Amino acid sequence: MFSPLIDELIAALRKLPGVGPKSAQRMALQLLERDRPGAEQLSRALAKAVAHVKRCGKCRILTEQEICAICANPRRDRSVLCVVETPADVIALEQSGTFSGNYFVLLGRLSPIDGIGPQEIGIDLLESRLREEQIEELIIATNPTMEGEATAHYINERAKACGVKVTRIAHGVPIGGELEYIDGGTLAHALNSRREI
Amino acid sequence: MFSPLIDELIAALRKLPGVGPKSAQRMALQLLERDRPGAEQLSRALAKAVAHVKRCGKCRILTEQEICAICANPRRDRSVLCVVETPADVIALEQSGTFSGNYFVLLGRLSPIDGIGPQEIGIDLLESRLREEQIEELIIATNPTMEGEATAHYINERAKACGVKVTRIAHGVPIGGELEYIDGGTLAHALNSRREI
Repeated sequence: MFSPLIDELIAALRKLPGVGPKSAQRMALQLLERDRPGAEQLSRALAKAVAHVKRCGKCRILTEQEICAICANPRRDRSVLCVVETPADVIALEQSGTFSGNYFVLLGRLSPIDGIGPQEIGIDLLESRLREEQIEELIIATNPTMEGEATAHYINERAKACGVKVTRIAHGVPIGGELEYIDGGTLAHALNSRREI
Repeated sequence: MFSPLIDELIAALRKLPGVGPKSAQRMALQLLERDRPGAEQLSRALAKAVAHVKRCGKCRILTEQEICAICANPRRDRSVLCVVETPADVIALEQSGTFSGNYFVLLGRLSPIDGIGPQEIGIDLLESRLREEQIEELIIATNPTMEGEATAHYINERAKACGVKVTRIAHGVPIGGELEYIDGGTLAHALNSRREI
């Protein structure tokens, strides 16, 4: 509908998650009409990030350094390793402010249907770390979904074979949540996992 | 929270309209984890569009040509000119499929508070077209907002001074709309603008 370059920009903006045709059109016109410096800045930031951001050699989080800031921090407890699915999970845990160990980011979860096996989520790298480093506890914090649980189960078996203690973060009623609004699956899990007080 | 290049990308993505911190983070991670070709494509499309897209010399719509495809089309009726606020309005009118004249895009509306006067919305270019071309009717299709109405009023006066017939698109109850759900302002306008049948 627009001139070719604008149509091309609209098509490219639709690559962003959650952006449909109308939003993409609005974004393209807004940038071109009112914020060309912003458009240039975004273009440069994308090019630079694509060129330089890679995976941390130790934890697989996205970073432009060889070893990310968390893995390189000498004040963090290297005897505890927390396995998560995505970099966003690392951010969420860091913001909770209660974990001072290191992370291992799977960048996915086991999903045979999508062709994602142990190789794709870096289990070999995780195993070699468990064997070579002085890791005493492996905390599995994959999501409590079907695939996340399968991944947790698989990692548990491999880690046990390396002689490392494995734990799973607790699942149950969220703090501040009201029982009335919690789904049945979570309540059933919370009941089954009850602890003596 | 992330490494500098990723933080920079997240900040740049927030320049897009309707994108907050959480969405920007999700977009950045999604592009870097799963769609690097898409990120490169977006980077290139942005750079090309910023470098080459400018305003059409006749109607001020965004285009990379000197004269846009609509103005250059010899089969369109050059005696009718429709004034709209934005390129998106042109697309909406084109999709309605009932207008075969030419357009004039203000790229804004009169808004003295924001420092947008007649110069900024290209009234001088519009007037010189009204004087030099064989335009018989000027259809004002600015939005029925306070500022859109003020702009329509101003353009009406300037066009009348050039001896051109001026019309305004009809406002009232949308086709398919139910009276029950239409706001009072629209209903009042629809009543006041009633026509004999």
